[in-house]
Amino acid sequence: MGLKLAGDSILSQGLQRIQREIDDAFDSLLPVPEDNSARLVEAMRYAAIGGGKRVRPMLVATVAEMYGASRASAVYAGCALEAIHVYSLIHDDLPCMDDDDLRHGKATLHKEFDEATAVLAGDSLHDLAFEILGGRKVSEDPFVRAELVHALASASGHKGMAGGQMMDIVAETEGKDFDLHTITRLQQLKTGALLGAAVEMGAIIGKVPEEGRGHLRAYARDIGLAFQIADDLLDEEGDEEKAGKALRKDADMGKATFVSLMGVEDARAQAHALAQQAIGHLAQHGKEADLLRALATFIVERDR
Amino acid sequence: MGLKLAGDSILSQGLQRIQREIDDAFDSLLPVPEDNSARLVEAMRYAAIGGGKRVRPMLVATVAEMYGASRASAVYAGCALEAIHVYSLIHDDLPCMDDDDLRHGKATLHKEFDEATAVLAGDSLHDLAFEILGGRKVSEDPFVRAELVHALASASGHKGMAGGQMMDIVAETEGKDFDLHTITRLQQLKTGALLGAAVEMGAIIGKVPEEGRGHLRAYARDIGLAFQIADDLLDEEGDEEKAGKALRKDADMGKATFVSLMGVEDARAQAHALAQQAIGHLAQHGKEADLLRALATFIVERDR
Repeated sequence: MGLKLAGDSILSQGLQRIQREIDDAFDSLLPVPEDNSARLVEAMRYAAIGGGKRVRPMLVATVAEMYGASRASAVYAGCALEAIHVYSLIHDDLPCMDDDDLRHGKATLHKEFDEATAVLAGDSLHDLAFEILGGRKVSEDPFVRAELVHALASASGHKGMAGGQMMDIVAETEGKDFDLHTITRLQQLKTGALLGAAVEMGAIIGKVPEEGRGHLRAYARDIGLAFQIADDLLDEEGDEEKAGKALRKDADMGKATFVSLMGVEDARAQAHALAQQAIGHLAQHGKEADLLRALATFIVERDR
Repeated sequence: MGLKLAGDSILSQGLQRIQREIDDAFDSLLPVPEDNSARLVEAMRYAAIGGGKRVRPMLVATVAEMYGASRASAVYAGCALEAIHVYSLIHDDLPCMDDDDLRHGKATLHKEFDEATAVLAGDSLHDLAFEILGGRKVSEDPFVRAELVHALASASGHKGMAGGQMMDIVAETEGKDFDLHTITRLQQLKTGALLGAAVEMGAIIGKVPEEGRGHLRAYARDIGLAFQIADDLLDEEGDEEKAGKALRKDADMGKATFVSLMGVEDARAQAHALAQQAIGHLAQHGKEADLLRALATFIVERDR
């Protein structure tokens, strides 16, 4: 994977494990049919299998296991969440959106296939997510299935991720007027909502009562913001080859980011403070939460 | 509405009622927020409120009520299904797909707003559908919620509607080689899957056991095919002003349709035979199924 994980074997092993599990899940969920819709499934497979860090599914699985849930159930729910993440990247990369040619070091879907196929493959992964969560394989308990659906749909729709993307587009269209408060709100929706959903879905599978989820939500909020500040730092200072995508697009467009608003040093300090704060929220947990702690640290220290 | 409904007051009243209910449901589900994502919700409202015939929600509500379910629950589920239908029209109209400028007699969403907003508004309506079905307002019974999600996601994804759209795109790209069998299969997915989901969702809300749904599925299959043949006839012979969209695009592109493969007269006869066959499947029901019977007749006699 080329991730910067020296001396951090817990996280490295945790990510490699979930990467295998998610690739296997997508592979078995998406057999290529022998009809004229084969192209659609091939496109879904191209985008969904291999490449991603699978941070969100790892969060689902780790939280679920912390509360004694079965790994198989959590991996399957994590696969649904990852399908939403992948669909959002496909649509984000379209010419009418960010117009990107490169993703995870390979051609974006509309470049490898075509725009119409990319729109449809994104839409179909969007459906796949809810087909997984509505089906019995994710949980025998229909209440768990319905709660998972509601958590994920709320996080990805207009009050969550898509709402954040719209704010981002408005920011691009209307110039760089956004202040730190607005950028924070935008990013809490755009990337934070799905990270929050990851932890929420783990808690649902682990049957954690509503009132016992506060510290998990606080952890997710902090790593979400730390993740985005780190992303802005990478966009400013990173290596395009390692990142596997075009960098410095925001700066070139004169768009406000955490780095442009806070400066590199303050942004870096803030990201590290958030990671420490996230780890602080896990104080009630023992070593079963070590993967979450390692992830918080990794998020601000990664080089891609 | 300008629909051809002379002497058919049951259907006319049924459609007007569900149109009001669905418009009201979307209106209350989509308050415009006071932040930079307002544009997204305005776009969702533009596409979702007003205009549509609401045939699918009427199917959900009628079947559910035939089995004693509450109308409120069925209308809410029908609204989820309609959100999927509307999202698919938004994405279908995009320049990279069918590139249409007119829908329900007004500018398509990407013409009225822009392409990026249209992609996101479609995606957000897609999420809204599952947010509705995962939430408690549609049903107190989590099993019903989970089953509704699974039925709708399966019907709209790569094994259903989106798969049919892919086959349609492949047909356009590769010319007019499709035979009647392949066109039938394509249309059973592209339009038939959601009509089938409508009846299935009504049966789920009405708690009809699996083994009691055969005749409802047969009805849905027949009206789905009749609907598409009638659509091809309208595309060939219809009035663009009444239709509220561009016609004769398929013929201009030399694309195979039921009409090009069967001829106008045989296609019309086939549509009417399917409508009668659909009505035949309802023999076990009394006047509570009259709306379904009227719909079958309307589908092949409509002029838009």
